[in-house]
Amino acid sequence: MEILVIAGIDIDAICGGIGKCGKCKVIVKDRHSVNQITAQEKNILSEDEISRGLRLSCFVQLNQDVTIIIPNFSLKKEQRILCEGIYKKTKFQPCIEIKEVSIPKPLLGDKENLLDSIKRELMEENILIDYLALKKISNEIHYGRKYDILKFKDEIIGVCNKEENIFGIALDLGTTTVVAYLIDMKKGDVIDIEAILNPQIKYGEDVISRITYSIKKGANTVNESIIGGINQSIDSLCKRNGIKNDSIYEVVVVGNTVMHHILLGLNLKNLSSSPFTPTISKSIDIKSRDLGIKINPSGNVHVLPIVSGFIGADTVGVLLATEIYKDNSISLAIDVGTNGELVLGNKNKMLSCSCAAGPALEGGNIKFGMRASSGAIESVFIEEETFKVFYKTINNKKPRGICGSGIIDIVSEMLRVGILDPSGNIKELKHERIRKNLSNNQKEYVIEWKENTTIGKDLVITAQDIREIQLAKGAIMTGINILIKKLKIEYIEIENLYLAGAFGNYIDIENAIRIGLIPNISMDRIKSVGNAAGEGAKMSLISRKKRMEETIISKKIKYIELASEEKFNEEFVKSLKFPEF
Amino acid sequence: MEILVIAGIDIDAICGGIGKCGKCKVIVKDRHSVNQITAQEKNILSEDEISRGLRLSCFVQLNQDVTIIIPNFSLKKEQRILCEGIYKKTKFQPCIEIKEVSIPKPLLGDKENLLDSIKRELMEENILIDYLALKKISNEIHYGRKYDILKFKDEIIGVCNKEENIFGIALDLGTTTVVAYLIDMKKGDVIDIEAILNPQIKYGEDVISRITYSIKKGANTVNESIIGGINQSIDSLCKRNGIKNDSIYEVVVVGNTVMHHILLGLNLKNLSSSPFTPTISKSIDIKSRDLGIKINPSGNVHVLPIVSGFIGADTVGVLLATEIYKDNSISLAIDVGTNGELVLGNKNKMLSCSCAAGPALEGGNIKFGMRASSGAIESVFIEEETFKVFYKTINNKKPRGICGSGIIDIVSEMLRVGILDPSGNIKELKHERIRKNLSNNQKEYVIEWKENTTIGKDLVITAQDIREIQLAKGAIMTGINILIKKLKIEYIEIENLYLAGAFGNYIDIENAIRIGLIPNISMDRIKSVGNAAGEGAKMSLISRKKRMEETIISKKIKYIELASEEKFNEEFVKSLKFPEF
Repeated sequence: MEILVIAGIDIDAICGGIGKCGKCKVIVKDRHSVNQITAQEKNILSEDEISRGLRLSCFVQLNQDVTIIIPNFSLKKEQRILCEGIYKKTKFQPCIEIKEVSIPKPLLGDKENLLDSIKRELMEENILIDYLALKKISNEIHYGRKYDILKFKDEIIGVCNKEENIFGIALDLGTTTVVAYLIDMKKGDVIDIEAILNPQIKYGEDVISRITYSIKKGANTVNESIIGGINQSIDSLCKRNGIKNDSIYEVVVVGNTVMHHILLGLNLKNLSSSPFTPTISKSIDIKSRDLGIKINPSGNVHVLPIVSGFIGADTVGVLLATEIYKDNSISLAIDVGTNGELVLGNKNKMLSCSCAAGPALEGGNIKFGMRASSGAIESVFIEEETFKVFYKTINNKKPRGICGSGIIDIVSEMLRVGILDPSGNIKELKHERIRKNLSNNQKEYVIEWKENTTIGKDLVITAQDIREIQLAKGAIMTGINILIKKLKIEYIEIENLYLAGAFGNYIDIENAIRIGLIPNISMDRIKSVGNAAGEGAKMSLISRKKRMEETIISKKIKYIELASEEKFNEEFVKSLKFPEF
Repeated sequence: MEILVIAGIDIDAICGGIGKCGKCKVIVKDRHSVNQITAQEKNILSEDEISRGLRLSCFVQLNQDVTIIIPNFSLKKEQRILCEGIYKKTKFQPCIEIKEVSIPKPLLGDKENLLDSIKRELMEENILIDYLALKKISNEIHYGRKYDILKFKDEIIGVCNKEENIFGIALDLGTTTVVAYLIDMKKGDVIDIEAILNPQIKYGEDVISRITYSIKKGANTVNESIIGGINQSIDSLCKRNGIKNDSIYEVVVVGNTVMHHILLGLNLKNLSSSPFTPTISKSIDIKSRDLGIKINPSGNVHVLPIVSGFIGADTVGVLLATEIYKDNSISLAIDVGTNGELVLGNKNKMLSCSCAAGPALEGGNIKFGMRASSGAIESVFIEEETFKVFYKTINNKKPRGICGSGIIDIVSEMLRVGILDPSGNIKELKHERIRKNLSNNQKEYVIEWKENTTIGKDLVITAQDIREIQLAKGAIMTGINILIKKLKIEYIEIENLYLAGAFGNYIDIENAIRIGLIPNISMDRIKSVGNAAGEGAKMSLISRKKRMEETIISKKIKYIELASEEKFNEEFVKSLKFPEF
């Protein structure tokens, strides 16, 4: 562990390296180069783990040079945002094509007009031309020089001098944050990233309040606010990298169905009530000038397809990035926010559903719950017997609340050390941290005493908080179970479990399994895929093959409306319990 | 003649019905119902005319009821603008299609989005949708009602309530005037017409000065001025007919190549110097919002194709209207302005050229020449022997100058009565009207004495004026002769001669033949087709078949650059002479 820390690897070790939390697992390639496995490690590691060569790094002592494999889940959460590793390599062949032309000077008797000369050079007689590109060509092309002609679909959309660089933007339009990736469209590299809070936060934090506001104030207000935010991000990227907005020729957007409709300025009324009908599902290409996005006015804004009112373009992005739709083996993709989106299947069949998890997993509806920001308890380890609580806060500040990953850890640890029983009750144990709140007669567990917090109160987790977590994880597990049954498979057949988004990056996976938030499958099948939706947008930007696959995905995927499933209530009640190990 | 006048038929008779000018020709169906042909008539009418039953109406006396046919060329010029007669009937089947849909209310479990429901109703799964139309559909369609969906090409461009009317506009973008025809797009009828002066007149009267100004000030200034003028016309039409601009879904435009480029905001530099290369020739469809034309923002602006730097979309319009490209027989279309555009051919082959006629035929470069406006002498008859001049002015005002048709008449009459010899010299005849201007030693002929004019000067035609007319008609006849030779035909094989535009409506056709401005072919083969370019625009607006034919025409027609023809100079010198009859 010391060597790893010196090497700059942020190995996870919430107990501080005293061999208690069991987070710092590594795989030692040559067992003879290190000390023998200790009794304490045998206590913490499973037999399967031991047989696969896993050790706790805080116990490993080296005799000589040795190769160590650090599993993704042993890294501190900030380091887990991975890209190259899991995503399949995408061939750089964007929809925006660049072709060099040089137009010889015409002579008297030459009857060919300028555009036809360009078409002939392109060897595309039937290509159309965007009107503003036509004007640009008319005013900027000089006979006898060389130019880059930009094509998109069946149209010429631009003309540049040969030395000009051109760019694209992949945009992940989240309910909370908007992330813009600036991409070099001659090479395919990400040059810069800009993340801002979704300016619509002022209309409410969740999609429902956005819908309500939009219906009250008209689609245009919320639309203008998001377009403004996007333009602000683009301007920042351009300024920082010294490029002109006009050099950006395409923006590819993913986002959930509500964000998708808000971006397009579509009416949200039908999305707000059953059967939650979208206006359009197919992917759509819109000229940037029509949408008011400040890139080259002839440039294209490509919005990925959505699947239903609850399965948006972000999920399609996740699928593009994980390529579930190409595999023989069965994968499950989970993207949890206020709604959990699930996709289960393989290249033959894919089922999706949306689970109304509620905000508990993001710290909402929890007594001391908070967003993942400075001072939030983000991971927790409870010592057996002593019930002493070890925790880490974001930015290592004095705690002022608990964010989603911390709450999952607490519940999981309470289960592990026996404070909580499988039905979710805090046990009647004699311990100063377990007590009854006299004002509401509710049991609670003290995470930290008030003198160590910034809020002047004991930081506790209440029986009600536990209930909220049960409802949330129950909703998700119900979704998973219904999909599993629809597909007629067993958990064991899930070969890949992709955890997308912030959720996947920050939660402790073992703890998530212990509380029954995700199925109990082998850890090495579980992959945090970071912002896979954004990755999907990038892929669609740089690969026309991927872009074609979007449509295939959105057509192939079947949406299951959980609420109309016969067994929904039965499954839900079953899923409320915590699993017993 | 008296009966015709009582019946309200504006028969032409510049001599006032004294049997001298020979303009009032009619065909009497039953010769026995009228008096015998007189000796005076036999003097004026040709043998061929007499054999075809032609009489001068001022000599005809009726015995009983009789059928009289009034040839087009015997009507006063204002009445000659004909439409229905010559143009082929076009089937009403516009490119903008209207289809009724009704969208049933979706139920829970219905996965179909709104757009897909509409596509299913339209039975067009792959149709695209204009972005603003998508927004409109999203915000305005209510489930369970009926709507008209508007389609254009591969896109849905609008949605209307069933009772809404929709409109289109055919636009003839002339160098001098802009004429807009408002068309009912559910029936095909012309509802109203608005004509305004081209607001670019302030940048110069001819295309060359427009080009010069545009190159100096940038394409945008002249473009904005024409777009402003078009919008003003559209607003007037809308206001007068109580319709919304949003109800107009298409504008179809014809105009010469320079107007075409100005409308599109294209650079005119390449059009101003050899080889006069246009930026684009093909027809083009542009969303009205991109061009700034104030109709429905999802509406289309269709601009007809051009053929070359000198053969514009107006000529293509003339061809659409006359259907030369469909006939077996050979036709010649002549559209004379400052440039004369000629097309000769039939369905197998069509040749076109542009003749630099100069402004003389429109009254320019002529000592007392003027535009066709109030007080202009527009037709002239000279009495043989006495050389007395009969004339008619526009609005019957005291004369203040001579417009194009008047100049043609004067030259022709001077030839007929023997004042002018075939080489264009004013003969040395002793007559008070024939004199030498002492200041420049040039001969001139007095049309009217100063006391009868509003300008306080003798109104004369000078030897130099005659020279200008010779250059103009020589240029056109050279073009005709070169095309005739290229096509390897004789005059006699021209079965239709179409005279397009103001030129065709206002000139005296016999006089035009006498001065050698148009070939000497049988009068009944010559047809004034009025604003055939505008008629072509209308046809393209209401007929998708016609619109397809535009492309065929513009591809089939071959452009002959006269200046690079070997025999050009030889032909031109020959054509300067007046024909001898």
